[in-house]
Amino acid sequence: MSILDAIYQRRSIREFTDESVNREELLEIVRAGIWAPSGLNNQPWRFVLVRDAKIKERLAEQTRYGYIVRQAASLIVVFLNKDIMYDAVKDYQSAGACIQNMLLAVEAVGLGAVWLGQILINKDKVREILTLPEGLDLMAVVAVGHPRHRNQKSTRNELSNFIVKEF
Amino acid sequence: MSILDAIYQRRSIREFTDESVNREELLEIVRAGIWAPSGLNNQPWRFVLVRDAKIKERLAEQTRYGYIVRQAASLIVVFLNKDIMYDAVKDYQSAGACIQNMLLAVEAVGLGAVWLGQILINKDKVREILTLPEGLDLMAVVAVGHPRHRNQKSTRNELSNFIVKEF
Repeated sequence: MSILDAIYQRRSIREFTDESVNREELLEIVRAGIWAPSGLNNQPWRFVLVRDAKIKERLAEQTRYGYIVRQAASLIVVFLNKDIMYDAVKDYQSAGACIQNMLLAVEAVGLGAVWLGQILINKDKVREILTLPEGLDLMAVVAVGHPRHRNQKSTRNELSNFIVKEF
Repeated sequence: MSILDAIYQRRSIREFTDESVNREELLEIVRAGIWAPSGLNNQPWRFVLVRDAKIKERLAEQTRYGYIVRQAASLIVVFLNKDIMYDAVKDYQSAGACIQNMLLAVEAVGLGAVWLGQILINKDKVREILTLPEGLDLMAVVAVGHPRHRNQKSTRNELSNFIVKEF
């Protein structure tokens, strides 16, 4: 699959089959994530991989999108290491670049995923469930699995609406 | 070029030939940007395209990486529209996802680019030069052009260093 096809065809997948995702696939996805750029190449991203059903259930209870978390075969929980961060805005941007790489890699390996942000409302609780130190700041949960279908539609405004000026 | 190849082979390009970049190429790159995900699909990104040498020179003076800005045939200046933002962390992440899509699209069309963040130190001045309203918050300048070479190297720490836990 070409880059541009992946970028345009990628959709948030929220319904999954119960087929599992193997660890190697998850590692390939995370590897794509860490090849995102970061300011000063500080590589501030950290990850927790979750395939255990009990932990998944406890995380599901922390978001109104619990039904997605429960269905997904695996979760990639994304953090920033506060000790490595150097500029909040740029590090958040880099987290976004990392997550986008992972979503595109998910397409490349034929899986589906959705970027879950609403769970940030319970980020301390998530850290507690995963028994992580305070130095890790939750950025997102990426739910990964085998898509039940690929009917999901998405839209964007007209390109011209985004281009404010040209010089 | 496949997704994973683009992700792994992409490098920051800081030296460009003087060949120009046409408007259609820039639009294709920005179009890839707006197909990034955003929270609530709020699509908060805005762009200014710069190919004019005088404006480029004035922007160059706002960053210690002016020599890159001067060399690049064109700039994509990326903003968030504050009126549309709904959650700073998530909107900054979405800006990062958008920029990453653009960097990958640059690879797809055979150009080179670098993500410049240091210029944020003068973000008000940049807005002034581009005669933009206060509601636009500078996120980055993406310098785009024809690579003078592709010798740039980059490294990442071992994947295992990023994976904190597995359940």
